[in-house]
Amino acid sequence: MKAIVALGMTMFLTAETIGQERQDISPEAAATARTLMETALESDLAYDIVESLTTEIGPRLAGSEAEERARAWGAALGQELGFDRVEVEGFTMPFWDRDSLSITMTAPYEMELHGTALGGSGSGSVQSEIVYFRTVDDLVAAEDGSLEGRIAFIDGDIMVRSQVGAGYGPANQRRRIGWQHAERAGASALVVRSVGSDSHRFPHTGMMSDLDGSWADIPVIAVSNPDADHLRRLHNNGEAISLTVNSVAGWHGEVTSGNVVLDIVGRENPEEIVLIGGHLDSWDLGTGAVDDGAGVAITVAAAKLIADLPQRPRRTIRVVMFGAEEVGLLGARAYAEQHADEVANHVLATESDFGARTIWRLSSNVSEAGTPVIDEVGRVIAPLGIIRGGSNEPGGGPDIIPLAMLGVPTVRLEQNGEDYFDLHHTPDDTLDKIDPDELAQNVAAYAALVYLAAETDADFRETPDGTASQ
Amino acid sequence: MKAIVALGMTMFLTAETIGQERQDISPEAAATARTLMETALESDLAYDIVESLTTEIGPRLAGSEAEERARAWGAALGQELGFDRVEVEGFTMPFWDRDSLSITMTAPYEMELHGTALGGSGSGSVQSEIVYFRTVDDLVAAEDGSLEGRIAFIDGDIMVRSQVGAGYGPANQRRRIGWQHAERAGASALVVRSVGSDSHRFPHTGMMSDLDGSWADIPVIAVSNPDADHLRRLHNNGEAISLTVNSVAGWHGEVTSGNVVLDIVGRENPEEIVLIGGHLDSWDLGTGAVDDGAGVAITVAAAKLIADLPQRPRRTIRVVMFGAEEVGLLGARAYAEQHADEVANHVLATESDFGARTIWRLSSNVSEAGTPVIDEVGRVIAPLGIIRGGSNEPGGGPDIIPLAMLGVPTVRLEQNGEDYFDLHHTPDDTLDKIDPDELAQNVAAYAALVYLAAETDADFRETPDGTASQ
Ligand SMILES: [Zn+2]
Ligand SMILES: [Zn+2]
Ligand SMILES: [Zn+2]
Ligand SMILES: [Zn+2]
Repeated sequence: MKAIVALGMTMFLTAETIGQERQDISPEAAATARTLMETALESDLAYDIVESLTTEIGPRLAGSEAEERARAWGAALGQELGFDRVEVEGFTMPFWDRDSLSITMTAPYEMELHGTALGGSGSGSVQSEIVYFRTVDDLVAAEDGSLEGRIAFIDGDIMVRSQVGAGYGPANQRRRIGWQHAERAGASALVVRSVGSDSHRFPHTGMMSDLDGSWADIPVIAVSNPDADHLRRLHNNGEAISLTVNSVAGWHGEVTSGNVVLDIVGRENPEEIVLIGGHLDSWDLGTGAVDDGAGVAITVAAAKLIADLPQRPRRTIRVVMFGAEEVGLLGARAYAEQHADEVANHVLATESDFGARTIWRLSSNVSEAGTPVIDEVGRVIAPLGIIRGGSNEPGGGPDIIPLAMLGVPTVRLEQNGEDYFDLHHTPDDTLDKIDPDELAQNVAAYAALVYLAAETDADFRETPDGTASQ
Repeated sequence: MKAIVALGMTMFLTAETIGQERQDISPEAAATARTLMETALESDLAYDIVESLTTEIGPRLAGSEAEERARAWGAALGQELGFDRVEVEGFTMPFWDRDSLSITMTAPYEMELHGTALGGSGSGSVQSEIVYFRTVDDLVAAEDGSLEGRIAFIDGDIMVRSQVGAGYGPANQRRRIGWQHAERAGASALVVRSVGSDSHRFPHTGMMSDLDGSWADIPVIAVSNPDADHLRRLHNNGEAISLTVNSVAGWHGEVTSGNVVLDIVGRENPEEIVLIGGHLDSWDLGTGAVDDGAGVAITVAAAKLIADLPQRPRRTIRVVMFGAEEVGLLGARAYAEQHADEVANHVLATESDFGARTIWRLSSNVSEAGTPVIDEVGRVIAPLGIIRGGSNEPGGGPDIIPLAMLGVPTVRLEQNGEDYFDLHHTPDDTLDKIDPDELAQNVAAYAALVYLAAETDADFRETPDGTASQ
């Protein structure tokens, strides 16, 4: 990162003279963006924020008392940093929580396995030989009632590692729908290989998919990749494998969660909103540093740097710390509902929720009129080691989905996610995994993008006839 | 490793012509050693052995039923591979075992920590604010009775990473003697930062030191590096930290352990022994792949390749799978006692117990007369990427210590231990951490060294007057 920083400083000067030829973004605005980047690269603010969140609050399961403490922390942070408006916007949600779990191999010999209940898992004490399924598809093909009283085990494969996280969707099927077929076939418990790209003995938790609003009655347990490898080798040796699973987990009625909304109010078009953010909840196993303390920290820090400028940008910058992302984008849905009357005023939205590694690509899905502005942003942030990607790529982070579905334009600063799924939803998602310099590069890119999007008068939204709206 | 293999093949040819000029090792012997190396680099035998041990036996705590299964496995392996003599040599030992543990931070908020009892820990349920000690020396300086009923926490620092494992000794003081000072000061429990170079949420177990034959009455728990970091940050923030520790662990009387001894009997001097080996026991948290399934596999495979030659070497090659290493070199001490009358016949001894990474250096501590032979071995194995180190360096692995103290000459094939203490004594010490190519390089080096040491008629031992004996 030191190299990038040094390179950046040199290239900013060169880029500045080029920038003066562009439209939609004034030379002054581009120069301000470059100054923001320089400031961001030297700033510890984002690291301090994620250190504070993970240390002072710790794990913050959606709907828990810890998540409530996190909201208070977020609101206090917003006040302290001088945001113009600070709101905690509550919503209710069903609360799932885990208690104790033990999962032990009892045959061919006794060995404790490293497992965790998946989100939505039921409770139960089961002792049985396992029925081995090489893939989730094999379990999908199991006949109704064929697993009566048994423990099903879906092996699958270690998640494929990729910069863009492309391995997640395919691997995630066993976590998402495995339980539905295990229950249909009569199994008393389901054990699955974790959805993760690491080879450490950490299980990866995460939410299952509901089935028409209902959830698993049986325990559904993810075991670490090395544990799954171990079971596979024993199975391939022809050994009969028995497990004992004792899981206590389940639903506990409705509780309150909430989003924390921090605004830097625009000087000319305060009703127009550039929305950024991350999610405040984390899984309970780690302290949620890369998922998603980093996203909260990056976006708050970027907005704060902009707030420190001599004047507010034209448009409002809104940082949302979404609640209850992990359990089904509940905060994001609540936000879209609670802000239904101003959704059309959201000119651009993006979330940071893919770890804390360096951003390497800028992609977007905005109006034809707005695309050259994002192109220009791309030129401004290029010295940070970021290339311009597709200009017609939907997406902006999970919590942006409800807004995007309502037509809000999105942009994405894509982080290198090569090791994100090593840590994702494990106990190992802790502060030490964050490189302060990489985090600062993120803040620099966000600060430039968000400032320019808020300062330009170009419109990223489409009108019904496909041209830029006003 | 593919590069090293290819390089090796070319360089063997070159080295061969040089080798013909050397003394003590005949050109034929050197040629045979090079053939053994080529065979070893292409062989999967060592990997198959460590896969079998870790998969079919699993964790194998010293003195446990699992360690007994491992001895049966070792003896059956020796028979199957055609060793000339296979013995299981029993001894008795006191048995320490852990049962359940929970360690939870209860203030400033609730969070489960990742901990494990240290070997020799007592049982107890304690709830208390912690007294923070920056280093073990600070606890050593605590006054008698000053910690009455409290939980002491030794922070210390993450173990320094090094190729030769030099960080282990200094870091290990808190694990070794911390409890003695915690008890002296009246603490009800001791928590220490794990002795490990990783930043994963795995605690590292390991034996404490006894105090004149007595062991801890209180629970002594190691927490992972990220957990210790977390406590340090909270402490530095001025927070009062409370923990709840519930540990069940302790001593359970005398049990039987044993060493497995496999001999390739020498054709000319069967009474002279070149001893190699590893330890069969492992800590209970992982499956003991790098500590020390690898060492067992490397040395058994090397001996087996030599046994496959048309004729036995001059001297006997003995592979010892030592029992109960982790709890105080008990197998090694038993071996030295039980073989007291033939200790003087051990012409050279070395153990592989430092992981499964590439060997990079050959060091030795043998007679003046024997040193040129080891030098020549160094030239033969140099194409494997191994340099010749000191020729007066004591050591040959932990289980060799009792023999070395009785005057048995030692040699060491030093592995790259840079990440050994990432895995050491953690649940994460599993088969997937072993690279088959790196393991094969170890076998190649051992096969060449052991063959040449068993085939030469040079003596590595010193006579009382300091010249070579015999
Ligand atoms: Zn997330
Ligand atoms: Zn997540
Ligand atoms: Zn060892
Ligand atoms: Zn060890």
